[in-house]
Amino acid sequence: IIVEVFRLKSYDMALSPESQLITNERNKTTFNVTELTNILDGGLEKTALRKSIAERKISLDPNMKTIHRGYLNKEQINFQNNRKMMYFFTDLAKRNNWHMDKPHSADMEFLPRTLANASGLLIHAGAFVPSIVSFGTPEQAAKWLPLAKACQIIGAYAQTELGHGTNLRRLETTATFDPRSQEFIMNTPSISSMKWWPGALGEMATHALVMAQLITRGENHGMQAFIVPVRDMTNHKPLPGITVGSIGPTLALDSTDNGYLRMDNVRIPKENMLAKYAYVDSKGKFQKIGNDRLMYASMVNLRVVLAKDEAVTYIQMACTIAARYSCVRKQGSLTPGGPEVQIIDYVTQQNKIIPYIALSYALHFNLAFIRSKYVKFLEDVKRGDLSNMAEMHMMTAGMKAIATERTSAGVEILRRSCGGHGYAVSSGLPYILLRLVASCTYEGENTVLYLQAARYLIKTAAKVSMGQPVDASVMYLTEDAPDKCQAANQMELCDHSILEACFKHRSRQLLLSVATELQSLVADGMKQMEAWNLVSIQLVNAAKAHMEQHIVSTFSSYLRNLKCSSAVREVLDQLCSLNALHQINNFPGDFLKDGYLSSKQLDMARKAEVKLLASLRRNVVGLVDAFDFTDDMLGSCIGSYDGNAYERLYEWAKNFPSNKTDVPCLWSYIDP
Amino acid sequence: IIVEVFRLKSYDMALSPESQLITNERNKTTFNVTELTNILDGGLEKTALRKSIAERKISLDPNMKTIHRGYLNKEQINFQNNRKMMYFFTDLAKRNNWHMDKPHSADMEFLPRTLANASGLLIHAGAFVPSIVSFGTPEQAAKWLPLAKACQIIGAYAQTELGHGTNLRRLETTATFDPRSQEFIMNTPSISSMKWWPGALGEMATHALVMAQLITRGENHGMQAFIVPVRDMTNHKPLPGITVGSIGPTLALDSTDNGYLRMDNVRIPKENMLAKYAYVDSKGKFQKIGNDRLMYASMVNLRVVLAKDEAVTYIQMACTIAARYSCVRKQGSLTPGGPEVQIIDYVTQQNKIIPYIALSYALHFNLAFIRSKYVKFLEDVKRGDLSNMAEMHMMTAGMKAIATERTSAGVEILRRSCGGHGYAVSSGLPYILLRLVASCTYEGENTVLYLQAARYLIKTAAKVSMGQPVDASVMYLTEDAPDKCQAANQMELCDHSILEACFKHRSRQLLLSVATELQSLVADGMKQMEAWNLVSIQLVNAAKAHMEQHIVSTFSSYLRNLKCSSAVREVLDQLCSLNALHQINNFPGDFLKDGYLSSKQLDMARKAEVKLLASLRRNVVGLVDAFDFTDDMLGSCIGSYDGNAYERLYEWAKNFPSNKTDVPCLWSYIDP
Ligand SMILES: Cc1cc2nc3c(=O)[nH]c(=O)nc-3n(C[C@H](O)[C@H](O)[C@H](O)COP(=O)(O)OP(=O)(O)OC[C@H]3O[C@@H](n4cnc5c(N)ncnc54)[C@H](O)[C@@H]3O)c2cc1C
Ligand SMILES: Cc1cc2nc3c(=O)[nH]c(=O)nc-3n(C[C@H](O)[C@H](O)[C@H](O)COP(=O)(O)OP(=O)(O)OC[C@H]3O[C@@H](n4cnc5c(N)ncnc54)[C@H](O)[C@@H]3O)c2cc1C
Repeated sequence: IIVEVFRLKSYDMALSPESQLITNERNKTTFNVTELTNILDGGLEKTALRKSIAERKISLDPNMKTIHRGYLNKEQINFQNNRKMMYFFTDLAKRNNWHMDKPHSADMEFLPRTLANASGLLIHAGAFVPSIVSFGTPEQAAKWLPLAKACQIIGAYAQTELGHGTNLRRLETTATFDPRSQEFIMNTPSISSMKWWPGALGEMATHALVMAQLITRGENHGMQAFIVPVRDMTNHKPLPGITVGSIGPTLALDSTDNGYLRMDNVRIPKENMLAKYAYVDSKGKFQKIGNDRLMYASMVNLRVVLAKDEAVTYIQMACTIAARYSCVRKQGSLTPGGPEVQIIDYVTQQNKIIPYIALSYALHFNLAFIRSKYVKFLEDVKRGDLSNMAEMHMMTAGMKAIATERTSAGVEILRRSCGGHGYAVSSGLPYILLRLVASCTYEGENTVLYLQAARYLIKTAAKVSMGQPVDASVMYLTEDAPDKCQAANQMELCDHSILEACFKHRSRQLLLSVATELQSLVADGMKQMEAWNLVSIQLVNAAKAHMEQHIVSTFSSYLRNLKCSSAVREVLDQLCSLNALHQINNFPGDFLKDGYLSSKQLDMARKAEVKLLASLRRNVVGLVDAFDFTDDMLGSCIGSYDGNAYERLYEWAKNFPSNKTDVPCLWSYIDP
Repeated sequence: IIVEVFRLKSYDMALSPESQLITNERNKTTFNVTELTNILDGGLEKTALRKSIAERKISLDPNMKTIHRGYLNKEQINFQNNRKMMYFFTDLAKRNNWHMDKPHSADMEFLPRTLANASGLLIHAGAFVPSIVSFGTPEQAAKWLPLAKACQIIGAYAQTELGHGTNLRRLETTATFDPRSQEFIMNTPSISSMKWWPGALGEMATHALVMAQLITRGENHGMQAFIVPVRDMTNHKPLPGITVGSIGPTLALDSTDNGYLRMDNVRIPKENMLAKYAYVDSKGKFQKIGNDRLMYASMVNLRVVLAKDEAVTYIQMACTIAARYSCVRKQGSLTPGGPEVQIIDYVTQQNKIIPYIALSYALHFNLAFIRSKYVKFLEDVKRGDLSNMAEMHMMTAGMKAIATERTSAGVEILRRSCGGHGYAVSSGLPYILLRLVASCTYEGENTVLYLQAARYLIKTAAKVSMGQPVDASVMYLTEDAPDKCQAANQMELCDHSILEACFKHRSRQLLLSVATELQSLVADGMKQMEAWNLVSIQLVNAAKAHMEQHIVSTFSSYLRNLKCSSAVREVLDQLCSLNALHQINNFPGDFLKDGYLSSKQLDMARKAEVKLLASLRRNVVGLVDAFDFTDDMLGSCIGSYDGNAYERLYEWAKNFPSNKTDVPCLWSYIDP
């Protein structure tokens, strides 16, 4: 293991042509970057809190320093991540009173972002501990949480099996109660029933929270959660009856230590079934406790967290890198035989970057909105009010899917916008991309989530047609609105209410048309589920359209209520329009199909977008500076604050380990 | 280095439920798979040739066996790749008379595909050697080729610099002629002028073919090619004046050994300038020889190769894996409380897979067409006929861009369609994805290539408006065609000539409208290049639309001339329609905008596509079997021929190196 810490040097800002270029950009910025940062953070005090966490308590702690992952192999990266996070939880977090079982405290809001490029113990802190909080009785929490929080045990969240991920009802792992010994007997009776994928299980975990079919008195009572010790606490070897190991490497540059688990008549004490919502008495009698939809309410949390702390953070990081690099990279010319221009001056390049800056802002404010709605929802639930459950489910499922899908596509576009250098690990972009694309699959596969959101929307459509009341976020479906867009010119097409109306119209249109088609198929004698399947492509599209509508409307209503300087308002207004217009111009079909937008209006939309790109061009660096990532967090040679892309790339390469030693002779390959 | 060879066991086909499922699928296939394979290969004899190369001479050679890359770290993968390819070139290829300097011989047609998952020496064989053939005099070829072909020297192709990739004219490396010593003095005068990215340069290369500005008698004569020895042939250390090293890891799972190169007054003999098209005499007088556009003609080759041997091969591999897996994976149900169904029965899943099978076929036949056109073009060029140069350039640039872009997007969709398992390296999909996305950047960055194709198209539009003759592939731009789609029902919308007309209309429409806009901007006083930039998003779209048109038309005209059984014809017809309809349904905007398709026709198109998906569903396995990849080539636990995804995943994981040893104790992280 390499112990020396390579940090990217800070170069003298004034020296290189590249740093000159980025300084020029900063001088051109029309607004106060700090003001915008405060808005993103949710206020001045929050910025101060975030900075004190990110820049003082964490970055400056010598134990939290990292060797750039490009210098390490996978095992070394994991070692570094785990070492760092072990220190974090057992020491730093304790000293600062940061609690992984209290994700909604003020400090915790900024921790994930700060730790975005250190993935060690993610599942332990993000899934194992919260699950104990959610499913455990107070006694169980009292027993396990202190151990887990001190990292004296490390837990995996073992739900997915080799044969089943999405369809949880068909999980095959069993937990059979044995009243004689007051134990559960855990079994994975087939190859496909092995637990497969759980993070931390491959090498780290001492315990696993296992989801299994509870069987008692010969009857199956469905999925319950069990704490199963998997490795010996003294020597870390698998316990009797346990087969555990790594499933091997994944697309990620680092590893979340994904593993498999077979259990062959493994006995665990009765107390290891987490019993907040269900209980087995000493005779084996099964009993539900309270409303298990409450359990579900707390699980939704992970999706909000995922969309906010991964999708939004990563797209903001990628925008920062690509935008800064595009301002220091010169390539080609815009006058015959003239000097080379910054690539950001190409309209095609603007089109790869600025719309994703707009999306970053749009999603940022959307997720802040959903998070606050979710916190309120949890309070309602505590008071026994479950009325917003279905809406909350739709919103979190849909937002997780759309946020991870849009940002994954965006990060790849941003990566390619950096040309060859975007393919190098030293750019920081590969890590972001590979981490992010996983989130399209876990915590609910996106297609499946869209279809779940569609189920709610189809029910809503039925309510609308019967004149029944509907939830706030879908109220627009009941509105009577003009069936043609009212914009008469380019400027009006940038108007937020006009754009909102476009997206509401499209969503309404797609939903009603698929609802009608579904109904008529069933009326013609087709079975409900078959008809559902037949129109499922449209259902997914309707769900996406609803979520796009949500993104546009939430951003614009956020701005309506925002108090800020006119300079900041101007750029935020532009970003909000751009985010909507870019979608219209890239996917105009639905807007044209029923004549809502005319061909002429679409031409105006296209021109309006190019105009917006041109006027946001000068603020590109300011807009990403406002995200306020440190160079350490970005880990990018081409995206650092000072703009010194080339010197940093070379400096980085010179220090690359294999360049410090003699390389193997060519002929060694022939004669091994 | 691990020496034991892990090969994926073949399981007894009859045993598992998964192999039963895939056998059922094969029994349902409506056509003769071998017939289709022959068609893809270009005839029975060619299949026989391919099989004898791929399955006998290469796969069965014990020196060509590989350890699955998931078991190895990057250094080990590279070692394996290089060892294997060293053996291949120095021994196997020699024995079989396979010549890397003759890419258009019959055998060579199938070699790249067979070697698709072994990337060692790619640049040496694919760029260094062909460049010597292209730029060298017969004497130079006689000197260097035997050394290179015997791998006694290994070469890099060093063109890109830290500061310049796309804009080759601004490369800063210089080669200054010194008449006193009859040498060239090579220099990289600044950080940004360092060669950066060349494959094989990082650790392997002994020589580099360096592109540099030729300076003699104080005058710059532009880019020429020089052979520069970079490492000592006895001890592999950098030669005097040379700084050479690795640029570090990239997004790829293996490494193409990308490196950097600084030269500080490095002297090379005059004979090391490749002098087929330009010559410096002993007094330093510069002289052009013949037509250097000929040089360009041979360079275009790499793009054809890239699109054919990388993009098409990789999308076919990904389709094979995803299609087979989707037939053995069961998840969820389509009847209330009913049995689980194969995921391929979900229409959303069909929509992720079958359109990419269609694209695989479409691109396969397109690239075969372009390749044969290119071979003919080379003959014309030899006879001094350069008249097809511009068209050939447009076609190869455009096809490289569209093929790499569409297949990169497709492979990611196919990967996600496998759920969690698609994220594991053991699925084989991550390797394919990461290799493929690089091709969107190298050999011409895609946006830049689209804009080059657009330049040709805009010129063509001008010719059309002046009634001048145009090249064959753009003749459709001159046609007078109805301005409304003639399809009256779903069936007619599957008709190839109707679909071709749609794509021709769209391309014509987009091109003419951007040409007009460009013209009027210039007429209003804007400078040509500024106007070009302003409409560049539309120019890219017009180029894409032309290429999509090319893909649809070439596929359909290929089928018109094809002699085959009616069963094969039926599926190929369906694939051709599906490929076109899928694009229309996903990007209907351009077709709707000017009313070419009505809203009603679009509804029909949507339904027609779902119907095609349903009828191709039963042939999914047959269609990918026809690509005829061996399990070895796929390297996929979930996509193997026998369908035994789960057993193979488990078998693979059990053999994973870290599972064969004790894992480190958790506490080692706290107390390192
Ligand atoms: C990096 C990573 C980390 C993970 N960590 C953990 C962990 O810590 N613990 C854990 O328990 N699991 C973990 N998982 C597993 C993850 O939760 C599952 O992979 C995920 O839930 C998707 O399920 P699946 O793999 O079964 O996909 P599948 O459901 O098999 O999906 C395959 C395809 O089938 C389609 N499909 C499936 N059902 C339907 C339907 N009803 N209708 C239409 N289409 C359908 C999907 O759309 C998809 O295209 C992890 C996975 C990854 C990639
Ligand atoms: C895996 C890999 C292997 C490689 N191997 C080799 C090798 O062996 N030898 C070698 O010499 N090189 C090699 N390269 C380098 C490769 O050829 C260049 O990266 C490629 O040509 C792109 O150039 P660039 O990096 O300068 O991109 P840039 O030109 O800097 O592109 C950055 C952005 O600017 C935009 N842009 C640039 N010019 C224009 C314009 N005129 N108009 C509009 N937009 C523009 C692009 O669209 C892109 O979005 C390799 C690269 C990779 C990734």
